[in-house]
Amino acid sequence: MATASEQGPLGPRAAQRGRPRDVSRDEALRQAALEVMAEVGYRALTMDAVATRAKAGKATIYRRWESKLDLVIDTTNHLASQRLPEPDTGSVAGDLTEFLTGFARFLTGPVGKAAQALVGELPHEPELAEAFRATFLAQQDAVLERILDRGRRRGEVRPDAPVRMVVEVAGGALVRRLMLTGQPLDETFVNGLVRGVLLPLLT
Amino acid sequence: MATASEQGPLGPRAAQRGRPRDVSRDEALRQAALEVMAEVGYRALTMDAVATRAKAGKATIYRRWESKLDLVIDTTNHLASQRLPEPDTGSVAGDLTEFLTGFARFLTGPVGKAAQALVGELPHEPELAEAFRATFLAQQDAVLERILDRGRRRGEVRPDAPVRMVVEVAGGALVRRLMLTGQPLDETFVNGLVRGVLLPLLT
Repeated sequence: MATASEQGPLGPRAAQRGRPRDVSRDEALRQAALEVMAEVGYRALTMDAVATRAKAGKATIYRRWESKLDLVIDTTNHLASQRLPEPDTGSVAGDLTEFLTGFARFLTGPVGKAAQALVGELPHEPELAEAFRATFLAQQDAVLERILDRGRRRGEVRPDAPVRMVVEVAGGALVRRLMLTGQPLDETFVNGLVRGVLLPLLT
Repeated sequence: MATASEQGPLGPRAAQRGRPRDVSRDEALRQAALEVMAEVGYRALTMDAVATRAKAGKATIYRRWESKLDLVIDTTNHLASQRLPEPDTGSVAGDLTEFLTGFARFLTGPVGKAAQALVGELPHEPELAEAFRATFLAQQDAVLERILDRGRRRGEVRPDAPVRMVVEVAGGALVRRLMLTGQPLDETFVNGLVRGVLLPLLT
């Protein structure tokens, strides 16, 4: 196993080559991986298909990522490094509505489709599950928790509000529509969730 | 496409053969399909693996189901014909706690694992998505709606309670733990969900 000192900041293989990696190239390859996964799922994704989509050679991919799993984990990690927009409107109602509307829009694109494709794999790929939880899920939860925390400091959120449970049900309601029922993740839904469920539990 | 009159009650091929099907044999094959799907996922499931698991010949399976998709859709439909336990304790708190505890236990077994394996396929298999939604999901929602309806008739549930949203967040919270975070679906969680979220929204 590679130690931390052998690893570049972006992955274990970066430091092994003599010249700096082309970061924008990596980004294009990750984007291609995301798109291919959104279209065909994790199992059917191949390094060939990712290379073709990114107009790159297969060797370029393998120089950077050892395996499909390695590429998908890095793509998942990287997604979470692109900060989600974090509104600070001055009210919990405004922050929740703006964040969840934006997040719902984000999920209806390739990221949501790729996430859905990954879900069935999580029980079979512990490393992937760990990355998915530690980055993709943890990031959403952290934004929601900061929104609720600011609300508590402003006195909008009751001190005994079930904050952790509110974070879970907000995420759960979105994911159920996205991945299970296929019902629209639109503004009407987000407004109903915020006004009908989240605010009554918090304030 | 077969018309309704050409179809037996349990599937399109049943009426095409001259002798009655062995229903317990079908059930064993569906159970085998569920277990194989829970273990390896939908993509990796093969008719061979299902036959081996059920100690049946491959021809036996193909006489009954035309394809893997046909078998999995029928298994999904059949799951929903096994009624979920529907408690009638006399209170919404009791009914919700008992139903969700039992349902959480049900989901932590092979059914939940098979459902998780299917989720990534739903965007690619519209017929499967339709079956999954019309049976597996609709059944849970129907039980929850009847529980809330009885509560409303008893005067426990406010007339303006966001009943439909409560059904969505209850299901969403369970599915997020089951499929995404991997956190336990235990009594502590169900009690927190019922007391901290569902009852305050309803009563």
